[in-house]
Amino acid sequence: MKRPTISDIARAAGVSTGAVSYALNNRPGVSAATRARIQGIAEQLGWAPNQAARALSDGRTGAIGLVIDRPARSIGVEPYFMQLVSGIQDALGDGTVALLLQVTDNAETELSLYRRWWAERRVDGVLLVDIRVDDPRIDLVTSLGLPAVVLGEPADGRPPCVWTDDAAAMDAALAHLAGLGHRRVGRVAGPAEFVHTRSRTRFFADSAARLGLDAAPVATADYSAEDAARATRSVLMAPDPPTALVFDNDVMAVAALGVAHELGLSVPGELSLVAWDDSALCGLVRPALTAVRLPIAERGAEAVRMLLDVVAGVQVGHRVTENAVLVPRGTTGPPRRR
Amino acid sequence: MKRPTISDIARAAGVSTGAVSYALNNRPGVSAATRARIQGIAEQLGWAPNQAARALSDGRTGAIGLVIDRPARSIGVEPYFMQLVSGIQDALGDGTVALLLQVTDNAETELSLYRRWWAERRVDGVLLVDIRVDDPRIDLVTSLGLPAVVLGEPADGRPPCVWTDDAAAMDAALAHLAGLGHRRVGRVAGPAEFVHTRSRTRFFADSAARLGLDAAPVATADYSAEDAARATRSVLMAPDPPTALVFDNDVMAVAALGVAHELGLSVPGELSLVAWDDSALCGLVRPALTAVRLPIAERGAEAVRMLLDVVAGVQVGHRVTENAVLVPRGTTGPPRRR
Repeated sequence: MKRPTISDIARAAGVSTGAVSYALNNRPGVSAATRARIQGIAEQLGWAPNQAARALSDGRTGAIGLVIDRPARSIGVEPYFMQLVSGIQDALGDGTVALLLQVTDNAETELSLYRRWWAERRVDGVLLVDIRVDDPRIDLVTSLGLPAVVLGEPADGRPPCVWTDDAAAMDAALAHLAGLGHRRVGRVAGPAEFVHTRSRTRFFADSAARLGLDAAPVATADYSAEDAARATRSVLMAPDPPTALVFDNDVMAVAALGVAHELGLSVPGELSLVAWDDSALCGLVRPALTAVRLPIAERGAEAVRMLLDVVAGVQVGHRVTENAVLVPRGTTGPPRRR
Repeated sequence: MKRPTISDIARAAGVSTGAVSYALNNRPGVSAATRARIQGIAEQLGWAPNQAARALSDGRTGAIGLVIDRPARSIGVEPYFMQLVSGIQDALGDGTVALLLQVTDNAETELSLYRRWWAERRVDGVLLVDIRVDDPRIDLVTSLGLPAVVLGEPADGRPPCVWTDDAAAMDAALAHLAGLGHRRVGRVAGPAEFVHTRSRTRFFADSAARLGLDAAPVATADYSAEDAARATRSVLMAPDPPTALVFDNDVMAVAALGVAHELGLSVPGELSLVAWDDSALCGLVRPALTAVRLPIAERGAEAVRMLLDVVAGVQVGHRVTENAVLVPRGTTGPPRRR
């Protein structure tokens, strides 16, 4: 069984292919009754407009693109991406627009993908995630005229951005720890090249200063469990270690639970932990992780709605999501006096 | 800046559009020197063949499709899918073929997606996962003539299948537990409608009989942490509970760690746990989970290679992956005498 064509429909309906074309394209030239009958037969035969032909005529491809620029191993363990993808899928809804997905850990490959997807009309637009300081993708999509929405903070010259205010979330996390009696709070941050890492570093310092906390160590890790374990050990084994740690994702905080176990530190008695993102992982481990819950799926869905507007020629401004909220669970408590 | 066209290249090269077409399509009609010069200019301008036009001429779309038929909430927490996606991306490699991804928890929507993707020429073929007993997708792709590869056990009339032999893995898991001294081993299985769940149920019974284990309870859950916690509680709170449990994925085994904690059962002293799949999650929790490690990414990559062969008209048979292996970690040990 091959794909049904306009000729198949014409044959089944006993009309000309021209009449079928008028009927299916909602153009005048056939009666309302004939139009309805032809559309019924087309549906029955499983006919759908040829995507390739449609792309040639109206320039739309019915797909949006997402490149995830991380090593494959981190994709398999990082719940962030599947939460993002489920939000994107929510907004794509009934499937008239599909998601074209590519994972590559090479920045050059990523740039050439955008060029090719656009030149070959594979996508109508793209979502940009993990924005770096001086990110070349911003200039590229602008110079290509490729419709784009950035999942990240707005800045001059950027395409429409959708972001979450991490300042309020960081402040809530540190206020929670300060309220429990912590004075020395450390942090295990994500990669410094990401714009959101730098912003959180600034927010962390601002909130710590506002709350009168001691200057405490900040370590950096690549979001993976292995690297986070290394960073956590280095912070905890230094002289005058912090009594609490804030992490830039949840995988790293889960890894820190393992390190605390290794070092014989009780959680939260001797060490409090706060995760970021808050996937289901945080609720599954024991003790369950106190976490800053980001609206990850919601932000993905909003980004898709914005991108579809941009593609349709609608003027779109920057948008901020609901604030992240702190979800207190079992890994934060008063520091035990030593 | 719009997408470069053949006219742009012709203008830049000072030749006719016909000459550009000859050069770029490797047809005779231009000299070797002119062809090289035109191709150089095309590359410089970022020209790429229009995907839509190419799809009309050779019938290829350069994309493969994957529909994940699970509720969005399970996608965000189930590491299986991101491991699968990273394996698929590995095999798609340099990005000449892309992945079209759709998540829907409606079986009817899934069927209509395959129809539309094929009718609209959005994909060259599809990967089928989570095969159900009497799965209507098998008949659908066969009747449509839509190239497909099944990630699951082979059976008469199925498209090419790539699967992992769960019999050997189940036997290894039960032999490990029997070797530690367990006589009553229970199981929390995935949804019964999946073919692989039924097969594992059969393998579990066969291995238990071979090893002379007592008949032990099997509960079913939907792969989610919440449902697994319920199922685990029901098995553990019944009279004469098992001293060990085998789970059908890792999220459910992690949830069982929480239930054991709740019920005051030490792991592995009073309860041993074996997870399935073995994502990084298993190594992150404490105690780290003993797990059956499936070659999930490898199976995804192999499925893509098979599908690209099917699309290219190469005859492809069923293939089996390397066996799953048991990875003993901290959640299995000798049962404590009560």
